[in-house]
Amino acid sequence: MMIIMKANATPQQTEAVIASVKEAGLNVHLSQGVEATIIGAIGETHSIPLERFEGMDGVDIVQRITKPYKLASRQFHPEDSLVPLDGFHVGGDEIAVIAGPCSVESRSQIIETALAVKEAGASALRGGVFKPRTSPYSFQGLGEEGLELLAEAREKTGLPIVAEIMSQVQVDLMVKYVDVLQVGARNMQNFNLLRAIGETRTAVLLKRGLSASVEELLMSAEYILAGGNNRVMLCERGIRTFETSTRNTTDINAIPVLKSLTHLPVILDPSHSTGYSEFVAAIARAGIAAGADGLIVEVHPDPAKAVSDGRQSLKPEAFAAMVKQVGQIAQIMGRKLATVQGEYSKNGWA
Amino acid sequence: MMIIMKANATPQQTEAVIASVKEAGLNVHLSQGVEATIIGAIGETHSIPLERFEGMDGVDIVQRITKPYKLASRQFHPEDSLVPLDGFHVGGDEIAVIAGPCSVESRSQIIETALAVKEAGASALRGGVFKPRTSPYSFQGLGEEGLELLAEAREKTGLPIVAEIMSQVQVDLMVKYVDVLQVGARNMQNFNLLRAIGETRTAVLLKRGLSASVEELLMSAEYILAGGNNRVMLCERGIRTFETSTRNTTDINAIPVLKSLTHLPVILDPSHSTGYSEFVAAIARAGIAAGADGLIVEVHPDPAKAVSDGRQSLKPEAFAAMVKQVGQIAQIMGRKLATVQGEYSKNGWA
Amino acid sequence: MMIIMKANATPQQTEAVIASVKEAGLNVHLSQGVEATIIGAIGETHSIPLERFEGMDGVDIVQRITKPYKLASRQFHPEDSLVPLDGFHVGGDEIAVIAGPCSVESRSQIIETALAVKEAGASALRGGVFKPRTSPYSFQGLGEEGLELLAEAREKTGLPIVAEIMSQVQVDLMVKYVDVLQVGARNMQNFNLLRAIGETRTAVLLKRGLSASVEELLMSAEYILAGGNNRVMLCERGIRTFETSTRNTTDINAIPVLKSLTHLPVILDPSHSTGYSEFVAAIARAGIAAGADGLIVEVHPDPAKAVSDGRQSLKPEAFAAMVKQVGQIAQIMGRKLATVQGEYSKNGWA
Amino acid sequence: MMIIMKANATPQQTEAVIASVKEAGLNVHLSQGVEATIIGAIGETHSIPLERFEGMDGVDIVQRITKPYKLASRQFHPEDSLVPLDGFHVGGDEIAVIAGPCSVESRSQIIETALAVKEAGASALRGGVFKPRTSPYSFQGLGEEGLELLAEAREKTGLPIVAEIMSQVQVDLMVKYVDVLQVGARNMQNFNLLRAIGETRTAVLLKRGLSASVEELLMSAEYILAGGNNRVMLCERGIRTFETSTRNTTDINAIPVLKSLTHLPVILDPSHSTGYSEFVAAIARAGIAAGADGLIVEVHPDPAKAVSDGRQSLKPEAFAAMVKQVGQIAQIMGRKLATVQGEYSKNGWA
Repeated sequence: MMIIMKANATPQQTEAVIASVKEAGLNVHLSQGVEATIIGAIGETHSIPLERFEGMDGVDIVQRITKPYKLASRQFHPEDSLVPLDGFHVGGDEIAVIAGPCSVESRSQIIETALAVKEAGASALRGGVFKPRTSPYSFQGLGEEGLELLAEAREKTGLPIVAEIMSQVQVDLMVKYVDVLQVGARNMQNFNLLRAIGETRTAVLLKRGLSASVEELLMSAEYILAGGNNRVMLCERGIRTFETSTRNTTDINAIPVLKSLTHLPVILDPSHSTGYSEFVAAIARAGIAAGADGLIVEVHPDPAKAVSDGRQSLKPEAFAAMVKQVGQIAQIMGRKLATVQGEYSKNGWA
Repeated sequence: MMIIMKANATPQQTEAVIASVKEAGLNVHLSQGVEATIIGAIGETHSIPLERFEGMDGVDIVQRITKPYKLASRQFHPEDSLVPLDGFHVGGDEIAVIAGPCSVESRSQIIETALAVKEAGASALRGGVFKPRTSPYSFQGLGEEGLELLAEAREKTGLPIVAEIMSQVQVDLMVKYVDVLQVGARNMQNFNLLRAIGETRTAVLLKRGLSASVEELLMSAEYILAGGNNRVMLCERGIRTFETSTRNTTDINAIPVLKSLTHLPVILDPSHSTGYSEFVAAIARAGIAAGADGLIVEVHPDPAKAVSDGRQSLKPEAFAAMVKQVGQIAQIMGRKLATVQGEYSKNGWA
Repeated sequence: MMIIMKANATPQQTEAVIASVKEAGLNVHLSQGVEATIIGAIGETHSIPLERFEGMDGVDIVQRITKPYKLASRQFHPEDSLVPLDGFHVGGDEIAVIAGPCSVESRSQIIETALAVKEAGASALRGGVFKPRTSPYSFQGLGEEGLELLAEAREKTGLPIVAEIMSQVQVDLMVKYVDVLQVGARNMQNFNLLRAIGETRTAVLLKRGLSASVEELLMSAEYILAGGNNRVMLCERGIRTFETSTRNTTDINAIPVLKSLTHLPVILDPSHSTGYSEFVAAIARAGIAAGADGLIVEVHPDPAKAVSDGRQSLKPEAFAAMVKQVGQIAQIMGRKLATVQGEYSKNGWA
Repeated sequence: MMIIMKANATPQQTEAVIASVKEAGLNVHLSQGVEATIIGAIGETHSIPLERFEGMDGVDIVQRITKPYKLASRQFHPEDSLVPLDGFHVGGDEIAVIAGPCSVESRSQIIETALAVKEAGASALRGGVFKPRTSPYSFQGLGEEGLELLAEAREKTGLPIVAEIMSQVQVDLMVKYVDVLQVGARNMQNFNLLRAIGETRTAVLLKRGLSASVEELLMSAEYILAGGNNRVMLCERGIRTFETSTRNTTDINAIPVLKSLTHLPVILDPSHSTGYSEFVAAIARAGIAAGADGLIVEVHPDPAKAVSDGRQSLKPEAFAAMVKQVGQIAQIMGRKLATVQGEYSKNGWA
């Protein structure tokens, strides 16, 4: 960390900053130039907020040299992390395709969808049971009943299940049922929830907030990793910008950026990142071509009747076409689509 | 709500939409024009999400005519809502000035600050005890010990206290201590938390999310109001934009916009909305001139030593100068600064 | 166009709006519902600004049904437009790859680069001679001397040349030399320039402004098309958002969105849309996978010595690797890389 | 300027950067710390783009210490600049209020408006004659005929006139007629236009681009100042963000930020920055309370009949009420509204 003093900073101000750096447990490297005095702060700087020094008299600029996260950083963990699911790993040569409806609505809906997406080549099943809805008057999900339906779909298909967790009080319940805990965009900085998930050993799909920077996403991952849970997958799901022709703006740049900064797998959600079913396949292809490790896609047997997100849900046949294209792109990238290996029973994966 | 069908929509598609509108409990007004067929959906449309119809075949545009919120809307509640605090009301002729440190750090720090801001003309005391921090390695607040220190400061000064709540599991504890529950920007769409607060009768300061639209802020207020708690104050605290010369961009427009859309009081936080102490007074004046009902401002006896937000905290003397200017602007607006009336003891307000 | 009147609009206000619609040369279709009166305005509405009616008393919402552009719209021109260059067409089965330095700096630099990118598979050569620079103190380009060097490079390689035009006064000069006039992001709404280019018959590469919506980009294309020049290519080059880990945010969604809205070819500029050479290949692949018709990429023989944009320029060998990958993706998309056919002499294309 | 080398940069890379710094005419101050080698580049760094070093091998971060502008900087010109108009100065104790229609439409419209705004307390008259319109089909202004009408209005009222210039080819014509050349948001980085205006000695109102940073606005001012024209006024007119409840987002922070960075006067345009007439007065008051030196406001005798911007135009009586409120705020700020002193004849100001 470098602290650049103002041109007119007094020696007393510089000394006060130096004292503060030492108090933070860091070493000091002082450089007094013609235009500026620079105080280098050396040591475990990732755990020291910039604001500690920004408010001090005489300070002009505080600039990090190393990142404010450590466990999530590729610098300290150069090899890709692999997150194991049912017989395959996310983050390696195999591309995970997670698919299913926005909300679990009924037994027939989720079973029908699970069978269809399995058939089309999906490697995991998604379905919401606790729904974060902007309006208090909208459908809020089936709750535990939905989890039971997901579990039944898993037994029928062997697909591991992914569902969103909305609060720390749901951890015990969710961990009992799901293979992957999804943290939604609106909860990316619900730090109590992140800490609670960090104490489990269940895989996590951490979605980027609507206006969260890449660095903030990695800081949220750091919360979970710091708790000892290293099965973290990151998910780009579109950011909020001025453009309104799509629901969100897919930050496709974030894929190679994240792959360079972190060892964690990166998943793209082209359903939320576009908001329109007719653009999902193009963006899914783009994501894999850009280096993503997987996709999470909304599929519904009858989007016009979906209780939520119908506008962005693919019909099963459109999803099957998309998977085929994605598989071809994967091949060019030297990868292949993951395939579920085991069978699932009440005793766990066979 | 108006559903505009595509030019080439079939009669069957139009009929399917009409059936869906009726199924939603709404009445239909059909208008078949030369260029487009329009289906008017009439009734309690605020509780029906647009997406219910957007995914249907043949639908081009779905446009709301009435707002998706009702309890928060000025249309259904034309007079200003007043939120009572210690001897004054927020939302009427009096301008509330809430001030204090970002974090409660120690007994001496919070007592000293409370006395100073009271002296300068503040009408409430703020102080964080559970801190939402981007980094898991940053100071996370004193917890219940901090609440006790805040309560002691209230006894000494008579100032009602405002503190942030981060999770639904903290509701019982927080309600026991504080006069106003603050919901932070990162939790504006933590719907479990909003529901839990809706069940209390404690006043709430609901901060706008970093990239939340004005409408989404009102939808979050609707969650609390729908629970029966109508003591809701809204807070503009800056939004995230491309501009980096300040920490956030104060959306000053949001003040008159919110005053036109809702009856709830609107507070401005010029500390977070600028991020730099040297700009706080100018933006505080602007907020009151634009029609805000109050301010929440970070004040620290020694910003350079603050554990958080030192860069944006005012020293007590700068805060006193700001209050004086704000009082003059208030007068032009036909208002005056609120003054704490009662005295507070363990038995409650005298 | 639909004009929705406020619930409390008076009959006189409605009549005034109807009169204004008729005065604009449009027909009226009136629908008086229970909740709202709707005035349908029918005819050549694309040439009528919404604001014509938005300011009228009693008007609540003005909503377009058809787009505000016509010549650029796929609705009125369903087949893809092809823009002919040297022996190939942009917008059909062939993928154009335009490459070269940000600025033409010297004879040896541009000739060396032209030979290298031709060798690697490029189908056109770019190079700036009038440079829009944020700072008045930065290098502003070689001007006509640069154009001569570009023409020499064309003679040597047969690659058509693309260069940016900054002002309407440069039209005659530029048209004499270049095959494609590039309109830069900062000039996307320089309407005088657009009109002047509309009067030529030279191909145009119209770059999207930093904060221009997809619709505004198409409106700017409409300016050129309205002048009679239909050789327009659109270029996504990244938009400005809150994210700072890359120079701009590639709006990859814009590619399928544009392909659905317009018949004009769509080119991606992954150099500007990322700003870092290490991310260019990933985003180039993503662009072609999303359906783009071509790429424009900055290549420099020695990026560290480039007078501008060195940080985002590829070395020739990295560019060659990128072209190979892009060619493979193109094949999956049922396309192939364009190849320059003809030879260029002072008498024009052979 | 500080160039921080990567931890693993080689001595050869560091030497190459040092050589490049010297080649740029700067002096070097080298600091070799434990974690990083820092190369301080000292001298006239404002004219050196960061990118000159960012593309070099081994470079991690390039950080400016001084600003990239000089003539516009308050550091080199601490006292406020005053721009003289008819008998008053913009930038001193007096608050300028520029008012008038978006477009000059007819003789009666502009004369009527001029008389009304003069009566209400305006100190200058605005009116567009060359209109930058998103659509090629919209009204593009009266051209020179409009300038003659503006001149006539000036003779009748004594109000100096402000009109937008769209292209460098209009400079001679515009300078003959107007007192202030307005550069619109879409032309803020039309560098050819800025250079041409820099060669005149006519006052300029330079509007901030829709997504231009504060620093870019100052760089554009630097273009004009570098040409020798120091009569530059800056104008905040709202930026483009995700929020859609207003047409743009007023960046009220930019007012105190600009006042701290530059000596140039700062004007606020609450008409464009909100887009709705009902919010203009609130934001006008806020602007003056935040320290703006003046306002530019759209006024039309009959907004419902305005050919452009009717939705955001004030009627003369609403404008008069606004001016009264603004005058009261000005008084608290220790300022007063400017009043036109002289009379204007064909021979110039009396």
